[in-house]
Amino acid sequence: MRSFDILIKNGIILTMDPENSIFHGGIVGITGDSISYVGEGPTEIEAGRVIDAKGGIVLPGLINGHTHAAMTLFRGLADDLPLMEWLNNYIFPAESRIDPDFVHTGTLLACAEMILSGTTTFCDMYLFEDEAARAAKAAGMRCLVGEVLYDFDSPNYGPPAQGLKYTESLIEKWKGDPLVSIAVEPHALFTCSPDLLTAANRLALEHDAPLIIHLSETANELVQIRERYGKKPVEHLASLGILGPHLIADHCVHLDGEEIELMAEKDARVIHNPESNMKLASGIAPVPAMISRGIITGLGTDGCASNNDLDLFSEMDIAAKLHKVGTMDTTVMDSLTVLRMATIEGAKALGMGHITGSLEKGKKADVIVLDINKPHMTPMYNPISHLVYSAKGSDVIHTVINGSLVMSERKLLTVDIEEVMTKAGDRSREILDWIRSANQ
Amino acid sequence: MRSFDILIKNGIILTMDPENSIFHGGIVGITGDSISYVGEGPTEIEAGRVIDAKGGIVLPGLINGHTHAAMTLFRGLADDLPLMEWLNNYIFPAESRIDPDFVHTGTLLACAEMILSGTTTFCDMYLFEDEAARAAKAAGMRCLVGEVLYDFDSPNYGPPAQGLKYTESLIEKWKGDPLVSIAVEPHALFTCSPDLLTAANRLALEHDAPLIIHLSETANELVQIRERYGKKPVEHLASLGILGPHLIADHCVHLDGEEIELMAEKDARVIHNPESNMKLASGIAPVPAMISRGIITGLGTDGCASNNDLDLFSEMDIAAKLHKVGTMDTTVMDSLTVLRMATIEGAKALGMGHITGSLEKGKKADVIVLDINKPHMTPMYNPISHLVYSAKGSDVIHTVINGSLVMSERKLLTVDIEEVMTKAGDRSREILDWIRSANQ
Repeated sequence: MRSFDILIKNGIILTMDPENSIFHGGIVGITGDSISYVGEGPTEIEAGRVIDAKGGIVLPGLINGHTHAAMTLFRGLADDLPLMEWLNNYIFPAESRIDPDFVHTGTLLACAEMILSGTTTFCDMYLFEDEAARAAKAAGMRCLVGEVLYDFDSPNYGPPAQGLKYTESLIEKWKGDPLVSIAVEPHALFTCSPDLLTAANRLALEHDAPLIIHLSETANELVQIRERYGKKPVEHLASLGILGPHLIADHCVHLDGEEIELMAEKDARVIHNPESNMKLASGIAPVPAMISRGIITGLGTDGCASNNDLDLFSEMDIAAKLHKVGTMDTTVMDSLTVLRMATIEGAKALGMGHITGSLEKGKKADVIVLDINKPHMTPMYNPISHLVYSAKGSDVIHTVINGSLVMSERKLLTVDIEEVMTKAGDRSREILDWIRSANQ
Repeated sequence: MRSFDILIKNGIILTMDPENSIFHGGIVGITGDSISYVGEGPTEIEAGRVIDAKGGIVLPGLINGHTHAAMTLFRGLADDLPLMEWLNNYIFPAESRIDPDFVHTGTLLACAEMILSGTTTFCDMYLFEDEAARAAKAAGMRCLVGEVLYDFDSPNYGPPAQGLKYTESLIEKWKGDPLVSIAVEPHALFTCSPDLLTAANRLALEHDAPLIIHLSETANELVQIRERYGKKPVEHLASLGILGPHLIADHCVHLDGEEIELMAEKDARVIHNPESNMKLASGIAPVPAMISRGIITGLGTDGCASNNDLDLFSEMDIAAKLHKVGTMDTTVMDSLTVLRMATIEGAKALGMGHITGSLEKGKKADVIVLDINKPHMTPMYNPISHLVYSAKGSDVIHTVINGSLVMSERKLLTVDIEEVMTKAGDRSREILDWIRSANQ
């Protein structure tokens, strides 16, 4: 007799292990916070709780490799504007006035949305990140968070020099936490001096923390970095000694072949954010080339102001399609490649490949169950194709994170969502006041 | 006292009328098959049935301007392949063996999926289209359908010459039907001789029916048409005297400036299918340029083999984003433009602008209600932005078509969906056998 705390049965189990093993009608056994069994299943089992997948798909929880979670509160505030008008008239004036409660509320709302659409781990860069971590922990989500660092004053920590101290305090505070990890997060090459970048890198290496940065998101960044340092962005990073497996570079839209080669040689990681890159007209990142060259590449939604949602199912669909038309080749970014980006490759990109991203014995139990008994998932020739091209976030019905059930039958068990939505509505009216007064 | 058969109250009513009027907390009154009131609402009302939108969005039902509905049965059968391998090894062998039951089952499945994601009208091109019409009517959906015509034998009507007769029989049979209209539908310029195109056009004009054709979907079509006729595709159409307001051209990916000008001068209509054009690496259609030139342009999903769903909410989101990155301009395809494409402009493109596509007194009552009390729709600054960038098909909770309630609280009232999904599963196993025997 095998005994589990949670048993998930009667599903099509997509493990996303190195062989991409699939078990039809198999089981996932969970003991404590970890996966203790995946496979066809012993016949004699007892379990504290049984989740019947009813023939649906059982998948590792999705990994949102890059977001600014609290920006949910800016969702739909302004769209379809020239970039500088959008930033200067809306985003920057509002961000200058945000506070801890804003980040807590916005991140809780983001966690609710992410859990409801199948995400179990997210990587965040924003302000007041202790609040982001607290909100994620309250929601029961796994996260890698870091305070944004730049050469300006921050509404959180004040003058630039305090950013690293704040980051260090986060690292100390959350050390050993089962859900929250801390990264060092300089904003971008054009907003951070070489000194700040070097100091941030030193802090990251000292604490074995990832270093996360926006990189080559827009063509304008290339011009700025060339003007200031006479180098391409990745060359600038390399010259500062920052390229390495601890570096997670978000976007990488405008890397050329030499830069891809440099990134690959140093085993730096990439997070691709196709919807944001499209909506902000940033460009199409050379993702097929980066993956071909062996760069570990995950998928992210970016923040809600430039997407406007946190749904990795639509992000997968668009990632698969965008690069086909971008390269005029129907065979690139096949559904398995894209599904791996949203699961195990995303986990590896965040330095969490040993913890999450696949259903394998010994890993933490981050598992989602999808209902496939729906017209848009019918018929079913290939579950991997369906997950990328047909499934919707709303097909996710049960979610386990770190061995705890956080959503059952689409009911969130960790977040009082009515309360959070009411609060988000209240804050949105304040935000409109901030915008009005800034633009008077 | 005003009296309605159906009263929809307590919603944010987006009319999509010429002024894009919005009524907060207004009502839509339905009498028989038509809208008899839209606005702030009289205070004294009685109604046979009251639909409480509970603060949600009330919108005209979406218009899917181009699909091959029965291809739901090929959903996920094969993806990510070179185009000719996909067509020759999968789609063509399977299509050579389809039968009336296939089209009936596949179209019913499609109608269920479309209603569940907010579509109330669709335009279809496929085989055995009498079955498509019957299925749509059974599901209570509005449709414009036509039998595909080409220079080859058809599994339905046999030799090419019979295609026009079959189409004419459809026109006779469905004349005056409240939901079903018939179009004349030659497949494409490279599969239809000038004689067939001319005869099809004559039939369309004779019966005041739309003429629908795939146009310039791939760059290869340009080469073929140039080789055969020494002309660009739109020039070829013009030389045959076929360009006019009755022409609905699907895709139009590779039109140049001169062709856009010709299309605009003759008031021909366009249906844009971004997801299919991306997945099949067809290219990015010059939609912003066509709309700027005044060409009426709707939105379609194309068939499930190249999408792989029929969800116009994701199609809107992608349409808005694709052209921003395609033109490197964040301001093109703003959310209002895209929402109009999926509603009133789509209806106009199909020649149905007087019947559906907006909430206006005297039009047929095709109305959807969306639940916005969800994390991904919170907060709410701008309902139009949310419909394009944040809403999901699964947010649609009630649907009225032609004055009849076809979905209530997400429960389909017209289709026995369990039965249809079971049948679709059965047919999918047959389809796999067809593919195996064709590829032996």
